[in-house]
Amino acid sequence: MKPVVAVVGASGAVGQEMLAVLEQRRFPLAELRLFGSARSAGSTVRCLGREFTIAELGERSLDGVDLALFSAGASVSRRFAPAAAAAGVVVVDNSSAFRMDPGVPLVVPEVNGERLPALAPGRGAILPVANCSAIILVMGLTALRRAFGLRRIVVATYQAASGAGAQAMEELRTQTADVLAGRAPSPRIFHEPYAFNLFSHNAPVDPDTGLNGEEAKLIAEARRMWDDPSLGISATCVRVPVMRAHTQAVNVTLVRPATLAQVRAAYAGFPGVRIVDDRAANGFPTPLKASGQDDTLVGRLREDPSQLPPGWRPGEPTVGYDLLIAGDQLRKGAALTAVQIAEAVFARRQPPPVTGSR
Amino acid sequence: MKPVVAVVGASGAVGQEMLAVLEQRRFPLAELRLFGSARSAGSTVRCLGREFTIAELGERSLDGVDLALFSAGASVSRRFAPAAAAAGVVVVDNSSAFRMDPGVPLVVPEVNGERLPALAPGRGAILPVANCSAIILVMGLTALRRAFGLRRIVVATYQAASGAGAQAMEELRTQTADVLAGRAPSPRIFHEPYAFNLFSHNAPVDPDTGLNGEEAKLIAEARRMWDDPSLGISATCVRVPVMRAHTQAVNVTLVRPATLAQVRAAYAGFPGVRIVDDRAANGFPTPLKASGQDDTLVGRLREDPSQLPPGWRPGEPTVGYDLLIAGDQLRKGAALTAVQIAEAVFARRQPPPVTGSR
Repeated sequence: MKPVVAVVGASGAVGQEMLAVLEQRRFPLAELRLFGSARSAGSTVRCLGREFTIAELGERSLDGVDLALFSAGASVSRRFAPAAAAAGVVVVDNSSAFRMDPGVPLVVPEVNGERLPALAPGRGAILPVANCSAIILVMGLTALRRAFGLRRIVVATYQAASGAGAQAMEELRTQTADVLAGRAPSPRIFHEPYAFNLFSHNAPVDPDTGLNGEEAKLIAEARRMWDDPSLGISATCVRVPVMRAHTQAVNVTLVRPATLAQVRAAYAGFPGVRIVDDRAANGFPTPLKASGQDDTLVGRLREDPSQLPPGWRPGEPTVGYDLLIAGDQLRKGAALTAVQIAEAVFARRQPPPVTGSR
Repeated sequence: MKPVVAVVGASGAVGQEMLAVLEQRRFPLAELRLFGSARSAGSTVRCLGREFTIAELGERSLDGVDLALFSAGASVSRRFAPAAAAAGVVVVDNSSAFRMDPGVPLVVPEVNGERLPALAPGRGAILPVANCSAIILVMGLTALRRAFGLRRIVVATYQAASGAGAQAMEELRTQTADVLAGRAPSPRIFHEPYAFNLFSHNAPVDPDTGLNGEEAKLIAEARRMWDDPSLGISATCVRVPVMRAHTQAVNVTLVRPATLAQVRAAYAGFPGVRIVDDRAANGFPTPLKASGQDDTLVGRLREDPSQLPPGWRPGEPTVGYDLLIAGDQLRKGAALTAVQIAEAVFARRQPPPVTGSR
């Protein structure tokens, strides 16, 4: 009864991380099939103790597959995922293609896992993985939202190269080596030099709203996962010269005032979040601490001086807090969440009904 | 009548930039004397077409000096600046030692230059240069403050190595080369690894407020320069692996609603600010664009979706805006502002009164 699993986009940065996560979590699978573009087809990948050859994804590639983890971009997902799902494949899709479809649940298991469907064997579905920045934001703030409510969020991001794929990580490495050697950097993937620089996120900017695509996703997807369509979110998404973990400086306005002690206590028992908050040692979340980790790191929790009520004294409640969040973009921001979604769906698969129609 | 000028801390990152700015702006000076610590004494520096030897700063070093630009840390300033000022030296001090002294004006010429004193020849003074992040913030927001008023600011910074001096810039270079070569980085100046990483600002964290020293300065000094002691400011200061320019993601709440067109227009004619705001080309302020420039760059001006009034339509006024600011930390954040203060003071020096007491 173990599923046949396909990874689509197996040679990409997220695809590689999906293979690592499947192996590390001992995901129960009967068989593993790897697919990629024509360009990566024929190349080999080591996983689960043996060598796999990547095949080019075609119309019949997913026949007989029970679970397909897609991370090959929105156009590939749009082309192949609907037919696969209709044919009974559970498609966990890391692209943006279906995230905002009304009929599709957008789930981070720790945040809104109850919205995952119970699927009978042979029933397919498309289950999107949210945008990496949206995942890391909701991981960092859901504990506060549950305890006190969220009225408004102002977030500035510090986003890693990995969000733009393996080639972007290589561009950061190459350009940095060039600059250190006194050579001029030659931007290829990004529109701005990347070595020892940062820039407003490379996603296209809406000419009317001024939001870039990353900010629009972050806002829309966080609202959708929290089922709070009018939640106020100001987002500024920035690419920084960091390899694979995103950091976020977040200012929140709670609905119900809370003390700092209550804010800290709200995180107790929230799965997948680790508090890193040592004022004396200046020890707080960083992308390097988050890299390769499953946990999203939260720290620098402090009262926002700009939202203190008149006459406020230390220890009293307030609605304004500042914090830092850091999470591995490839892992919790993509591959880990994809595999967690698959685990949840296959764990709660019902046996087929004895009577009734299929 | 040209002043004798001393630069104290001449071998440091800011001291070197002070020399460059004095030269580039053809600051009228009769003589230049360079001072530093015992460690840097004896080393030579090229400036104004000739070689200067750095002397160790001592009690009588500033005898006969009219203008002393200090950038050797707060303890050196505290030890030497008061006596020098009492003896008639105009001390422009880049350290934090005197910035919050009630008797001392904290001035960025474009922002509140009217507060600089008119000093008769022979009259000394201590004129501090504000914290680099505070300077860049007030440069980026004063045009909006004058036009519409500022009610609240939420700022997240992306701060360069140069703010911690030349050794920190070298640490970033060395660690990055180490990591690219597969060697482990060895942090010395900073408490966290710096190559391909970022971290909450290295200034000590107040155990009660949770603010680090950089955030406390940014908030206090911006309020002081704007003479608005209760202005609400939330600040998160972060060190990023960038060499010499600071970037800030800023969310503002204006007092009086304005349209985006009015917000853009408010910057027209504001000296020292350049708008870099091309949505179609994704062209916005970056630290590399700001490096070596006198201007502070402002862009990504857009309505904040979290502060739009109910029923708002595009083109209508609102109080909430987001923007990016970038400025050269060594230049406008320190050396340029120091020289501008000196220029303003010496340009308006009054001749000594013919009658009356001195």
